[in-house]
Amino acid sequence: MLYSEMNKEQLAAEKQTVEKLYEELKSKGMKLTMARGIPAPEQLDLSINMLLHCLDGDCTSKSGADCRSYGVLDGIPEAKELFMDMLGVSANEVIVGGNSSLQMMYDTIIRALQLGVYGSEKPWCKYDSVKFICPAPGYDRHFAMCEALGIEMITVEYKDDGPDMDEVERIAASDETVKGIWCVPMYSNPTGITYSDEVVRRLANMKPAAKDFRIFWDNAYCVHHLSDDHDTLLNIIEECKKAGNPDMVFEFSSTSKISFPGGGLAVICASENNINFIKKQMAFQTIGFDKLNQLRHAKFFKNYDGIVKHMKAHAAIIKPKFDLVEYMLEKELQPLGIGKWTHPKGGYFISFNAPDGCAKRVVELAKEAGVVLTDAGATYPYKRDPHDSNIRIAPTYPSVADLRRAMELFCVCVRLAALEKLSA
Amino acid sequence: MLYSEMNKEQLAAEKQTVEKLYEELKSKGMKLTMARGIPAPEQLDLSINMLLHCLDGDCTSKSGADCRSYGVLDGIPEAKELFMDMLGVSANEVIVGGNSSLQMMYDTIIRALQLGVYGSEKPWCKYDSVKFICPAPGYDRHFAMCEALGIEMITVEYKDDGPDMDEVERIAASDETVKGIWCVPMYSNPTGITYSDEVVRRLANMKPAAKDFRIFWDNAYCVHHLSDDHDTLLNIIEECKKAGNPDMVFEFSSTSKISFPGGGLAVICASENNINFIKKQMAFQTIGFDKLNQLRHAKFFKNYDGIVKHMKAHAAIIKPKFDLVEYMLEKELQPLGIGKWTHPKGGYFISFNAPDGCAKRVVELAKEAGVVLTDAGATYPYKRDPHDSNIRIAPTYPSVADLRRAMELFCVCVRLAALEKLSA
Repeated sequence: MLYSEMNKEQLAAEKQTVEKLYEELKSKGMKLTMARGIPAPEQLDLSINMLLHCLDGDCTSKSGADCRSYGVLDGIPEAKELFMDMLGVSANEVIVGGNSSLQMMYDTIIRALQLGVYGSEKPWCKYDSVKFICPAPGYDRHFAMCEALGIEMITVEYKDDGPDMDEVERIAASDETVKGIWCVPMYSNPTGITYSDEVVRRLANMKPAAKDFRIFWDNAYCVHHLSDDHDTLLNIIEECKKAGNPDMVFEFSSTSKISFPGGGLAVICASENNINFIKKQMAFQTIGFDKLNQLRHAKFFKNYDGIVKHMKAHAAIIKPKFDLVEYMLEKELQPLGIGKWTHPKGGYFISFNAPDGCAKRVVELAKEAGVVLTDAGATYPYKRDPHDSNIRIAPTYPSVADLRRAMELFCVCVRLAALEKLSA
Repeated sequence: MLYSEMNKEQLAAEKQTVEKLYEELKSKGMKLTMARGIPAPEQLDLSINMLLHCLDGDCTSKSGADCRSYGVLDGIPEAKELFMDMLGVSANEVIVGGNSSLQMMYDTIIRALQLGVYGSEKPWCKYDSVKFICPAPGYDRHFAMCEALGIEMITVEYKDDGPDMDEVERIAASDETVKGIWCVPMYSNPTGITYSDEVVRRLANMKPAAKDFRIFWDNAYCVHHLSDDHDTLLNIIEECKKAGNPDMVFEFSSTSKISFPGGGLAVICASENNINFIKKQMAFQTIGFDKLNQLRHAKFFKNYDGIVKHMKAHAAIIKPKFDLVEYMLEKELQPLGIGKWTHPKGGYFISFNAPDGCAKRVVELAKEAGVVLTDAGATYPYKRDPHDSNIRIAPTYPSVADLRRAMELFCVCVRLAALEKLSA
């Protein structure tokens, strides 16, 4: 029976039942975390041979560079090739960096603030304020980065196929201090949706007031499909070229969830003008990133096909976990009419919308019973979810057995929070 | 016979002889570079087992962290320990980073500009200008970094035991926009000198006008001795504590010339207040550096003693090269009274002072004959050597045979440049 159709007595009885369920689960003393999108240990084992056998003593890149030594600021060619095929860019449109795409994003923004980007009239810090458009719910670390660097965030809502483009276009065109937009365009963190072709084209065709406006395209999950029935995404760099805005996008990606979260490769892709500009700035920061790790990746994956195959092995491990979460939500919550959730075909998250005003309480209840979720609100700029509704579920790290227990608790917490609200 | 004692005819005859020598050497079509302090391939071979055998499939740090995964912003404990013993700091005074100490310096400065350092009243970019004291000749990349980030450089001369401290103290005390000083305190790049205890203590006891003044202590060559008869350096972090200036120093180091220039570990050391402040800022930039490489280093070197032993193997390879350079300079130039050079007991460079006004010409002549040296002037802020005299000799990369040929040419170039000057 739907909670919305229950009368006062029915709700009271249900609340008593659910409170008892909650106490029972709490007494089990669980200790689980589903706070972050972290691959399970078995996923990391898939790449272990990269560490054991890939460098056989010959550390020479096919360019002739000794990967042990200094140099090659933009990455060895064989590492570039992996990403060129993965992201549809040419060798002059990519820089292979260190182990963290977050770091490449942060560095890109702090350099923009201090020095400007290609085509800037002045460094961004010379404006009274700098603003970014932040479709939400989104990736908490994007928003935290803006806050840390003093960038004002303008929240825009997500629709089913990407950000509300009417709003995005309006805001970008309204003010030259609006310098960027954050996008996780494929299997978006946390919603799981992929931007439609129309949304990508509208983004590429924007006419922002700022001539040095940039789309920060965090394509973190571009090959992270759960099955062969997967989403597709237009190539933003191509679309920006077609639209006559070739320099308007910085694309980021990494192998953090392909090889190793702590020891993968990160990349930035952009127009040649952008890349040349970035390389000039970057040459003062470093002599080069870790080419040994680049060589390891190139030897292990061999080519883009190697990555595609590898991702199927990841999917085999994590798809059952996504299925389990959806199964539990359908079984436990659908009949009660509380909560809505997404059905992503890839990525690392399921986005759950609790009844308005309940998200914080759900997270709190779960924590008290031993299951740590991403903080409620974290998926919004300034951690302010206007509906106190969105919760990011990260199913990959726990074992299937642990995940089942955690989701059992989660559903009870959602029920209890909803009942507390209804009976308040 | 000293050139200074030759008469016009003798100089003309000598010039004719040297021109002939130069043309002979030029006709050999050499192709060598001594531009940068790069370890020779045999030095890199010393660490090759780190790549082959150090990670046996178990990637767990003794802290319990899976080094393949996310996290541990400040480095795994076993990697910290290597540096704690090497640099005399505690676990709370060190962050182990990625593969580049240059990057840690750049990031530290750009964050200081954008956000300030511990104790800053405001971000450094909010001042009309920011100035750094730059003892010279010094490391070209320090100076290039300042220039790229818009920091004004104030050149101070080196004495035999460190920077001219009267000048340093005066400048630092004179102006609150003087925010830093660059130091390569041990086997300084390029002079090869090590700061005396008195200089270190005077630095630690400075009373700068800026309360957020920082010593940038690039201790790149702290264990890079050429023999057991080596220099010693006071611990600047200790001395700053004693002086009541605990937060005044950022110390940097790396294993770039211990393990691999492209795949080593970099560190920043500082007071706990500084480190906590930096970690707070850094948490927005990255989830963590490459812990797999940290684990590799910890397993390979085991402890600081392992590093000390390893550096003796490096010394066995490079000391003959330093000896050769000094031998050639003594044999070829000393009798003529042209040029002065240093006699470092460690590090990567010999600093050569050509007769005033000759450095650019020497580098040019050498280049025309196929030997690339560091650009003349590069060791000074804005690439302006007031005497056009200093040339950095980097003897480590070429083989002994190549180095002999290169130094033969070098000495001929110095003679020719000096003779051109004397006969002008």
